[in-house]
Amino acid sequence: MTQSQLLPSNFDEFLDARKEGFIAAKEFKENGGRIAGCLCSYTPLEVLDAAGFAAIGLCGIDNETIPDAEADLPKNLCPLIKGTYGYALTQKCPYTYFADIIIGETTCDGKKKMYELLADLKDVHVMQLPQAQNRSYAKEIWREELRILKQTLEEKFQLTITDEQLREAAEKRNRYRQAVTSMYALQKNVPPVLKGTEIMVKLLKGTFHFEIDKVSTGIEQRVIEAQKAYAQGERPVHQDEKRILLTGCPAGGVIGKVATTIEDSGGVIVCLDDCSGVRTMKQMVDTETDAILNAIADRYLRIHCSVMSPNEDRIENTMEMAKEYQADGIIEIVLSACHTFNIESERVRRRAQEMGIPYMQLETDYSTTDVGQIQTRIAAFIEML
Amino acid sequence: MTQSQLLPSNFDEFLDARKEGFIAAKEFKENGGRIAGCLCSYTPLEVLDAAGFAAIGLCGIDNETIPDAEADLPKNLCPLIKGTYGYALTQKCPYTYFADIIIGETTCDGKKKMYELLADLKDVHVMQLPQAQNRSYAKEIWREELRILKQTLEEKFQLTITDEQLREAAEKRNRYRQAVTSMYALQKNVPPVLKGTEIMVKLLKGTFHFEIDKVSTGIEQRVIEAQKAYAQGERPVHQDEKRILLTGCPAGGVIGKVATTIEDSGGVIVCLDDCSGVRTMKQMVDTETDAILNAIADRYLRIHCSVMSPNEDRIENTMEMAKEYQADGIIEIVLSACHTFNIESERVRRRAQEMGIPYMQLETDYSTTDVGQIQTRIAAFIEML
Repeated sequence: MTQSQLLPSNFDEFLDARKEGFIAAKEFKENGGRIAGCLCSYTPLEVLDAAGFAAIGLCGIDNETIPDAEADLPKNLCPLIKGTYGYALTQKCPYTYFADIIIGETTCDGKKKMYELLADLKDVHVMQLPQAQNRSYAKEIWREELRILKQTLEEKFQLTITDEQLREAAEKRNRYRQAVTSMYALQKNVPPVLKGTEIMVKLLKGTFHFEIDKVSTGIEQRVIEAQKAYAQGERPVHQDEKRILLTGCPAGGVIGKVATTIEDSGGVIVCLDDCSGVRTMKQMVDTETDAILNAIADRYLRIHCSVMSPNEDRIENTMEMAKEYQADGIIEIVLSACHTFNIESERVRRRAQEMGIPYMQLETDYSTTDVGQIQTRIAAFIEML
Repeated sequence: MTQSQLLPSNFDEFLDARKEGFIAAKEFKENGGRIAGCLCSYTPLEVLDAAGFAAIGLCGIDNETIPDAEADLPKNLCPLIKGTYGYALTQKCPYTYFADIIIGETTCDGKKKMYELLADLKDVHVMQLPQAQNRSYAKEIWREELRILKQTLEEKFQLTITDEQLREAAEKRNRYRQAVTSMYALQKNVPPVLKGTEIMVKLLKGTFHFEIDKVSTGIEQRVIEAQKAYAQGERPVHQDEKRILLTGCPAGGVIGKVATTIEDSGGVIVCLDDCSGVRTMKQMVDTETDAILNAIADRYLRIHCSVMSPNEDRIENTMEMAKEYQADGIIEIVLSACHTFNIESERVRRRAQEMGIPYMQLETDYSTTDVGQIQTRIAAFIEML
């Protein structure tokens, strides 16, 4: 079984976008554009947008450079982190290669320590994320981190970031979030309007684009098209398909291995609950606030990732989403060696059990060695629903 | 090879202390004493001392309850964390069992998320450690965390913690640190005054004692005795033994597997550089300061653990210690799945190479499965020095 056999049918579209992105990145830079590499949903993209940077996601989503990364990093580390570092080390990712700066956050242990090594290869600015939202000072120190980021960009690149630019950026990002949320909401229908993998690939593709407004337009158009087709009776998903809520670690690197397998095994992903999913996208920046930089900071601090402790709100939100999207079952992806999601998954499992929602945790990485096992487990889980 | 065959000759002394501790814990509680369980060198012990608690180290240091812990926690997690949780779950550790409260810190991902599960079993208070020391607000938020701890203890246990009590506690803890530092300093001699394993076991034993002053007295007496014997020509360590600096993760759980093996293979541990080692113990509280709680907070924030990022000072300190203690080589212990020390070890390795100091990293856990491999690697490393 090769990786390509596992990919959703529209995955070529994503690969093409990536290839085009390589050429586009070079041209973009040659025309004076600046690229900021990002790795996390906590990165305050509005600050980068306002500074005139194209914010591009650099998370490693395949196995290609992991063996190279393992020369410097432990084997026993999350594949996303190793992949990201590997692409920087081998210079095989043009976005990383062309990035003027990489913005990191002290989210998990693996990433925060990897950045120290990455800083030998690239210009890296690390933001210090509070350990939790439940302290009176948390909001203030995160706002301070955004001020430090703004100041760093201004000094390093000799520019000025105005409130007006920040507000405009927030409006554009809110529009994007609204578009994504509308696309996710299509799946509340029974049967859902789209295959979950189509949505996942489309959104992943958007993270490699330089102009957020064009991405938003593309999503909005697809939502309208899909709604129209559905109203006219098109049903790309059969009503017997089991409705799955996909939660846990970032799923971009296992769309083939996990998401496609779900949708090839009698299931359909109706709710994406990873860090680019519903729980993050429904958080909007309050663009009416005077202190716009603070409003941006506050929006990001509301995100519920397992790196936060306590993180009850994520679990409660997942359960609410399961009801709202009428999920038949929850599948949680844990990327190997991701301690925070791995440990938290025990609490998600318990809560799902209390709620009477079938739950399965899958620990996996970007390799193909466990494909057979994953397929068997997913098929058995869906059959049981 | 069983675990007991691997233990240093004075390990029985430690086991006896633990057994006695079990009985002592019960009596201590029956006489109205209170126990606070601690897991980390960042725990501000003075606050617990001042509140009248006996602060006891609860870090899991053996394999016994790890299989039980793995029912709730991932297999791929640091043995110290699994062991700690396992002892709470199985109620096999009287210190954990009798603890009125457990004080945790958001140090590493594994611990901070484990505490969420531990809180279902025991009363746990988690302090939020800043992600690094290099922010202007870091000191202030850590001081705030100490105020929150103080207030929590006062409210929960209906007591008042005075500055006088805090100052007295700091003086006692400083005395202990001074005693430990003097014991460590014995090893600067060529040949060193003591076996490194004797020091490690003696200090580990002290962490299960209820009265810090008695522990300090015991250490001070042993230092005087050892100095006297050395002056009279006693040489418990041969001058040809290779001088090893032991750094990395907490070594308490691998004294048998690693430290004893080093000293049975032609080496001697002259410098202990883990979290109970020189780098932590030489940090004193400034007891002359008016705001004593702040002074205590500031002392703890100066500790260099790999959970901090950046953490240059730890690496530089290790190199200085290697020179000061005339180390022939550095051995770094990484407990399985400890991402922060594991990733940071690459930078320690590079720095040691620059300094021309032979370096070896050992990734291990509390099991006996890799004993043969560890012994072979240590013997080969020491032979090469």
